[in-house]
Amino acid sequence: MAVNFKNDYNTIADKRILEALVKYSGEKNIGYGEDIHSKELNDMVNNILGKDVDTYVLAGGTITNVIGLNQMLRAPYEAVMAVKSAHINVHETGALESTGHKVIYLDNIGGKVDIRKIEATYKMYADNHMVLPKALYISNATELGETYTLSELKEIYNITRRLKLYLFIDGARLPEALVSGGYTLKDIAGYCDMFYLGGTKLGLPFGEMLVIINDELKRNFKYMLKNRLGLFAKGFVGAIMFKEFLKDDYYLELARREKEMADMLREGLDRYVCYRNETNQVFLKVKTNKLKALNELVLFEVWEDLGEDSVIRLVTSYATTKDEVLECLEAFKYLGM
Amino acid sequence: MAVNFKNDYNTIADKRILEALVKYSGEKNIGYGEDIHSKELNDMVNNILGKDVDTYVLAGGTITNVIGLNQMLRAPYEAVMAVKSAHINVHETGALESTGHKVIYLDNIGGKVDIRKIEATYKMYADNHMVLPKALYISNATELGETYTLSELKEIYNITRRLKLYLFIDGARLPEALVSGGYTLKDIAGYCDMFYLGGTKLGLPFGEMLVIINDELKRNFKYMLKNRLGLFAKGFVGAIMFKEFLKDDYYLELARREKEMADMLREGLDRYVCYRNETNQVFLKVKTNKLKALNELVLFEVWEDLGEDSVIRLVTSYATTKDEVLECLEAFKYLGM
Amino acid sequence: MAVNFKNDYNTIADKRILEALVKYSGEKNIGYGEDIHSKELNDMVNNILGKDVDTYVLAGGTITNVIGLNQMLRAPYEAVMAVKSAHINVHETGALESTGHKVIYLDNIGGKVDIRKIEATYKMYADNHMVLPKALYISNATELGETYTLSELKEIYNITRRLKLYLFIDGARLPEALVSGGYTLKDIAGYCDMFYLGGTKLGLPFGEMLVIINDELKRNFKYMLKNRLGLFAKGFVGAIMFKEFLKDDYYLELARREKEMADMLREGLDRYVCYRNETNQVFLKVKTNKLKALNELVLFEVWEDLGEDSVIRLVTSYATTKDEVLECLEAFKYLGM
Amino acid sequence: MAVNFKNDYNTIADKRILEALVKYSGEKNIGYGEDIHSKELNDMVNNILGKDVDTYVLAGGTITNVIGLNQMLRAPYEAVMAVKSAHINVHETGALESTGHKVIYLDNIGGKVDIRKIEATYKMYADNHMVLPKALYISNATELGETYTLSELKEIYNITRRLKLYLFIDGARLPEALVSGGYTLKDIAGYCDMFYLGGTKLGLPFGEMLVIINDELKRNFKYMLKNRLGLFAKGFVGAIMFKEFLKDDYYLELARREKEMADMLREGLDRYVCYRNETNQVFLKVKTNKLKALNELVLFEVWEDLGEDSVIRLVTSYATTKDEVLECLEAFKYLGM
Repeated sequence: MAVNFKNDYNTIADKRILEALVKYSGEKNIGYGEDIHSKELNDMVNNILGKDVDTYVLAGGTITNVIGLNQMLRAPYEAVMAVKSAHINVHETGALESTGHKVIYLDNIGGKVDIRKIEATYKMYADNHMVLPKALYISNATELGETYTLSELKEIYNITRRLKLYLFIDGARLPEALVSGGYTLKDIAGYCDMFYLGGTKLGLPFGEMLVIINDELKRNFKYMLKNRLGLFAKGFVGAIMFKEFLKDDYYLELARREKEMADMLREGLDRYVCYRNETNQVFLKVKTNKLKALNELVLFEVWEDLGEDSVIRLVTSYATTKDEVLECLEAFKYLGM
Repeated sequence: MAVNFKNDYNTIADKRILEALVKYSGEKNIGYGEDIHSKELNDMVNNILGKDVDTYVLAGGTITNVIGLNQMLRAPYEAVMAVKSAHINVHETGALESTGHKVIYLDNIGGKVDIRKIEATYKMYADNHMVLPKALYISNATELGETYTLSELKEIYNITRRLKLYLFIDGARLPEALVSGGYTLKDIAGYCDMFYLGGTKLGLPFGEMLVIINDELKRNFKYMLKNRLGLFAKGFVGAIMFKEFLKDDYYLELARREKEMADMLREGLDRYVCYRNETNQVFLKVKTNKLKALNELVLFEVWEDLGEDSVIRLVTSYATTKDEVLECLEAFKYLGM
Repeated sequence: MAVNFKNDYNTIADKRILEALVKYSGEKNIGYGEDIHSKELNDMVNNILGKDVDTYVLAGGTITNVIGLNQMLRAPYEAVMAVKSAHINVHETGALESTGHKVIYLDNIGGKVDIRKIEATYKMYADNHMVLPKALYISNATELGETYTLSELKEIYNITRRLKLYLFIDGARLPEALVSGGYTLKDIAGYCDMFYLGGTKLGLPFGEMLVIINDELKRNFKYMLKNRLGLFAKGFVGAIMFKEFLKDDYYLELARREKEMADMLREGLDRYVCYRNETNQVFLKVKTNKLKALNELVLFEVWEDLGEDSVIRLVTSYATTKDEVLECLEAFKYLGM
Repeated sequence: MAVNFKNDYNTIADKRILEALVKYSGEKNIGYGEDIHSKELNDMVNNILGKDVDTYVLAGGTITNVIGLNQMLRAPYEAVMAVKSAHINVHETGALESTGHKVIYLDNIGGKVDIRKIEATYKMYADNHMVLPKALYISNATELGETYTLSELKEIYNITRRLKLYLFIDGARLPEALVSGGYTLKDIAGYCDMFYLGGTKLGLPFGEMLVIINDELKRNFKYMLKNRLGLFAKGFVGAIMFKEFLKDDYYLELARREKEMADMLREGLDRYVCYRNETNQVFLKVKTNKLKALNELVLFEVWEDLGEDSVIRLVTSYATTKDEVLECLEAFKYLGM
């Protein structure tokens, strides 16, 4: 059977996470996030970040993006700025627009926002015949696996302060960004109004932990969460998983494992690599006529069809083994690619 | 510590469900519900119901109600009819309205719809200055724990055929209704356009299985699911759990256990029982001045404050033990209630 | 041909209004409400009310209700309270819900809100599983033609201050309420956060003037107006009409004319009158089997079918003449009703 | 005072239109578009187009775009395709998105859609993680005053048939397009599913006439119109105006007058002209440092700031006189531009 590098959400969960669930399976708790585990998770995060934040566990990336941004965008004429390739723009089936808000396109450099252009774009929205920019959305890591440097994050943050924009960081792959970017969760929390820490793509059966830093955005969030379909009856399930995830920086250990496997792939397939990055997504340019044969041996996604060539994406997960990587490298060799 | 009868979603999950997750935890799957387990679940349900339906696992009751009804109500002027006490009316923080649709209030008898009044209410909506009724929503079991009889379901179904309304059955506690109503999932599937089978309140960490029966409603549902924030990346997690839930009618076994414990409570506390039903919710009328003392021994919800008296709700779950029931009965005795 | 008492929006416009349009028809103005007439109208209203308000002319009642309330209800979980018979509830095709907000039903006395019940209903909405009441909507005159007394308005206003609710007054028939209630526009402005003065039902081809009193609600209203489809390119058209309407209290003169004709009808048809009020809507209880014959002579609306009897509504407008009233009274006599 | 070329909606109305209103001002009619004039207008348009269409008069361009497209886009995941500079994209304050739908950007050539790219863009939207394209929106004349040729319209129409997209033509300046494009309303009606004929920018105080050609889109439109805030109580006002507008092709006479004045401007200012077109919008590239002085003599809009140069827009209206054009030409000469 083909070795699976299609994505980083292809196995149920890491062993330690499931064991935590089994451990607490008999315990009775209060519903809707009013339980002790949700409280402990919030305390734990406060400690890590060195500030009082609010934490909530949601089901996945899209719902976290939309509900988080809904808390920032209140009037229907308020809009969020994001690069064209942003997940909220392309791969969420118009979910944000369906809650009534427009996405304004920002210029990009790869998957990152072009920082020098933010203000100019903002200023084009000058009167009541156009939407009012109210938030800036970035992903870290980006859709192309790149990581913002800490100084880039600071610069973006400062721009948003000046323009009175909220800053939202989509962290579906934030653990991966931390590992390759060389900074911490606490750093992230210093340079945005809201972010989330992705679990679905790193060993959880589901779950992203939304962290609200800006006090203005904390108010009535549970109303929003219920209204926008994100409130779990058994809130303690997500809380127990994230406590285990954060304990002794276990999530960073998982992310490091992903990166190690991706680095091994990149090293072995160096001459194919395009869209360079240092996280768990490996983009390769290969001959289009080899795709079919390759796909018998390795599962991947076709990212872009360039005619004779194609860009494909290989993704490692916390569950990827060295043997799988070697099998993949072997496949390339075998096919004479 | 007080014995917990506050609700039926206070423990993580039944042992067999967690074991199924552990069993498949290393397996690699395709994402977004395109996996083999989701396929097998759908096949399994087709077999049970004796017809070709579409099945989807969603996170909880509110999101299933809203997305299901959104598939029925397309134009913004289309509305759903429901009793005033319906969950979508009262306890979903206006989620349905936030997707743009009005709820029309139907007359009720207890928590059930007053069947004789449906058509008259429908006919009041006669021109384009009023919303257009397009769907009828009922819960089975109801918010007050009552179960519709099969002949009531048939009658309601026939009315909706005549009035060209879609019929949606909220089945957050459908297993409980099946056990006390003496009919089957297949019966339910014969008398509605869409229903769901609740897992959250019966041994799953999360999850309701939506079943789409009417072909008109199947089209593009996955677009709706993603757009309305309900699509899980790891769709196989829910599918694996529901396969186990349905296997050998295990869900009915769990529901029977709930009912048995509730019956035991009802028997022991017969003279307090109000809002009579045969499912896992026990409504009791007690002296308001005893609530505080009772609450030290038993966790429950205050349903209604009637002044001198109060209606409280005790709920049994799959995890409720005989000892817990006895402890509760003891508490009533001890307090001289 | 039958004499027309079907409604108060059956003729294009009063002569003075049209003459004002003709007078300014050659003048060139700035678009989108930035013109001098819009400015003058606002100044004029500031003078009348003795405070700094913002004024906007919108096309009709429904759009003014929805946009005005949208300015009050920002988060999707925020709701407005209103009596069941409120125009926003019944006769706006779910327009408010389509912008994402629920209407909470208040108890009523006739078409008025039951003032004693407001607070109790408000308090039922106590947690994040239910919507959050944020505004109270009343109509003056009501749907049944009743007028709130000034002391009732004060009392309602005080309740809303205590509960931190915005108060919105639908004034589609406010001129009629002023004439029969014995108070002034300035009084109204003292006891609410926003109201509008209806023109469509009193001599304008279209147009309601929304008055924003509460400073919190003024911010970015023009964004809302454009976003919610209410901004006219030729804003000066509505402004010119309303300047004429307000000049020398001309609108009150028109409203008095309506009331005079309605009083004449009520006097002549006293024994049929039900739902008593003193404005321009006359509700009559008549034999259902006479409706057809009556309709050949008089145009009216059937308000309610009570079986043997029916309630019908006759409405006078600024254009109703004494001869028309006499013709109507004659019709009743002729039919031996 | 400066001569006004700022836009084509700066005067109340053409004389013949106002005279029609005065003529019928005493007549009593049925409300909400059920009157005889609305019927006659629809018959008149059926005659002109040689087919059975539905006609509705709405208040302005934005509301007509949004409600028309809402009739095409039913599910929240359905999107409309349009060029980036489209009015619905840029100058409607996110109104369409606020009704829940995304706008997909199409490549453009000037203000027109790049016809060769439509299908490729359509095909990028291939699965349920992306929105589903359901309609194509074009403006004729475009935002830059260009006119589609009849063969271009045919080609676009054929593409939409093949891709099963509805085709919507924004006709805020359709009369101008007809005059410069050399085709007729009937031609337009042959190559789209819905279009509108703009009145606001051509002699009406307000009003765009929406024409629904495709039978699928006719159903329940009045519900949509009311729900989306577009239904006038006095529907006969708009109908009377549009009957006069269409009578003896009066609207074309008005449009020709606009074009004649614009041609005169273009001829006199030929060396400044950029974004060439043949309708009533004249785009000129001038020195930025002359703008202030020019603005004292001529009112215009700054379209784009290019640094040393600026693009300005001069617009003629039905009310523009030769003297005004001469005054404008004089101003350029006087300023030595």
